[in-house]
Amino acid sequence: MRSTALSCNEKIGEHVELSGWVERVRTHGKISFFDLRDRSGTIQIAAFDDLAGKVAELSIQDVVRIKGEVKARSEKYINPEISTGKVEIKLEELEVLVKAAEMQFDMGGKELKLELPTLLDFRSLTLRHQIIRPIFQIQSAILEGFRKASIELECEEIVVPEIAMEATEGGAEVFKVSYYGHSAFMTQSPQLYKQMLVPVFERVFTIAHAYRAEPSVTTRHLSVATQLDCEFGFMEFPELLDALESVGTKTVSYAASKHPEILKQFGVETPKIPKKIPRLTLREAQEIIFKEFGRDNRSEKDLNPQDEIDICKWALDKHGSDFVTITHFPTKKRAFYTMPDPENPEYSLSYDLLFRGVEI
Amino acid sequence: MRSTALSCNEKIGEHVELSGWVERVRTHGKISFFDLRDRSGTIQIAAFDDLAGKVAELSIQDVVRIKGEVKARSEKYINPEISTGKVEIKLEELEVLVKAAEMQFDMGGKELKLELPTLLDFRSLTLRHQIIRPIFQIQSAILEGFRKASIELECEEIVVPEIAMEATEGGAEVFKVSYYGHSAFMTQSPQLYKQMLVPVFERVFTIAHAYRAEPSVTTRHLSVATQLDCEFGFMEFPELLDALESVGTKTVSYAASKHPEILKQFGVETPKIPKKIPRLTLREAQEIIFKEFGRDNRSEKDLNPQDEIDICKWALDKHGSDFVTITHFPTKKRAFYTMPDPENPEYSLSYDLLFRGVEI
Repeated sequence: MRSTALSCNEKIGEHVELSGWVERVRTHGKISFFDLRDRSGTIQIAAFDDLAGKVAELSIQDVVRIKGEVKARSEKYINPEISTGKVEIKLEELEVLVKAAEMQFDMGGKELKLELPTLLDFRSLTLRHQIIRPIFQIQSAILEGFRKASIELECEEIVVPEIAMEATEGGAEVFKVSYYGHSAFMTQSPQLYKQMLVPVFERVFTIAHAYRAEPSVTTRHLSVATQLDCEFGFMEFPELLDALESVGTKTVSYAASKHPEILKQFGVETPKIPKKIPRLTLREAQEIIFKEFGRDNRSEKDLNPQDEIDICKWALDKHGSDFVTITHFPTKKRAFYTMPDPENPEYSLSYDLLFRGVEI
Repeated sequence: MRSTALSCNEKIGEHVELSGWVERVRTHGKISFFDLRDRSGTIQIAAFDDLAGKVAELSIQDVVRIKGEVKARSEKYINPEISTGKVEIKLEELEVLVKAAEMQFDMGGKELKLELPTLLDFRSLTLRHQIIRPIFQIQSAILEGFRKASIELECEEIVVPEIAMEATEGGAEVFKVSYYGHSAFMTQSPQLYKQMLVPVFERVFTIAHAYRAEPSVTTRHLSVATQLDCEFGFMEFPELLDALESVGTKTVSYAASKHPEILKQFGVETPKIPKKIPRLTLREAQEIIFKEFGRDNRSEKDLNPQDEIDICKWALDKHGSDFVTITHFPTKKRAFYTMPDPENPEYSLSYDLLFRGVEI
């Protein structure tokens, strides 16, 4: 029966078998160490005498199966930075299942300082690095947290088309697909599909790809993005904002609570979520930015990136909140399906949820 | 505070407010009834005198908000076919939020007998019908069940590309995409991505679209399918089959247990899942088909559709199982990444899980 690295914390004195990847090798003559990584994390393997020589020949990313005895580390060798830092395995058997090819760059360090093309050309390798892999574990947890929050609000999950006959939100920036000789497009948003499905299920959610053929290279332009979308019927505006904030905050807090060790690794603080998320209209937010930060954007139709950073700073200082909701953007600036405020149709019942300086 | 149809079961004597869609209207002079549908189900609304006249003017799919009092139905009016069949609402206020356009076909009946083009051209309407909508509630529950089963096996969720530079599994049947002037393809399978991510996470799952430009129109050819995929590292073949059967059976049983009322509506029996799912090699299955069903396909490289139906019938009769696992297909017939059986390389360590006559 195979054990995982993490499960060894509870198995001191036991003989275990593990499989995984070699992350780092350190040799000191008759003693060698290596870190073995599996789905649960990494654990230090200590080898003596003949086995130390065998370990010295291991390469980074070799795939191995080992047997050994779990030992408690003595106080001065405890490593508080990893979740198995109080134990190690005394190696008894080592089998190399697959020998890794020689790396063209160092995968064994704490950092991975590579140019972007190298990082991407060797993606199946670089994703394994301890500084990259956790990002996608957070992504995985965000997806799970979003779905939990949506299902809690009684949303039904829908699967929407990603090839369509028409562009969703207008504009020329669409990827064209040849569909049995017809011209078709990759969808730019699940928006209209989820609106059409509200009369079917009343409340829906979907996680879908959104495709935008925007030739810009910035952090706010992506050819493909994964979109997390809810849509609700019969909600008045304040209740809709409650739903928005519930899904937004629960998604983030679920991911944070599932992976405290990753937040620690990246020096990220646990999100601050007060009972009531501060809500501001666009004009109120711009007034605060003018008064507190000295920038007069009071007639702009949207917040710019610096405005978003500043208003989040304000929300954190004044309300202890990493989130802030901005409402009532000018009707003209929003998509055709946005409802004008009956009390002042120049502004719309629209909203953005900001988190630590970025609209989410 | 809005109530849902289903929640009225617990609110006899209370005054409630509901919003939803009009499903059926029945008028008898001074008494009218209609069914109101929301996300939770449908409930009968009874209207008297003036309100009866107002209800008589309602059209199917009108969007309404109502107020009324929840009443227990007398014994002889109980409707066991719907989940709110023991109650109804005595109408007190009726507001039509959106008047539906006149339907071009009958949406108010128990059945929806339309030609396929009509069914699809009016998809945003026909999806609302009580005979269509539940199919997609089952789909939603299948997605949820699959993810629960995968996460239970410690898989990490991955998001895979659906546009690629090369066709995944060869063949000319791919959709072409114009990608910033370059030629690209819609991916035919997440298979290779998940294999590449096993060295990152050891165990992964994904729900992804698979695109196949197959011009055939059969129930086994789809231009776009939603694929539910797991991949595991370091599992020996029997353990892999355990994982396959665990995910397959839990996905199905989760959906069935979440929606017993839909299974009842469609006359579908609860899946029969014994502790041990029967496992057969392809050759063993063909031998059974020869002996029990008289068709000699013992040298074929795969099961044909009738074989799959028959071997499932056998599994149900002999093992009380709606599932059966078939293993060891000829190596030549399977994709290049399938591992030949070390003990007999002519056959591979491959598997199909069958459920009620279909490979899933």
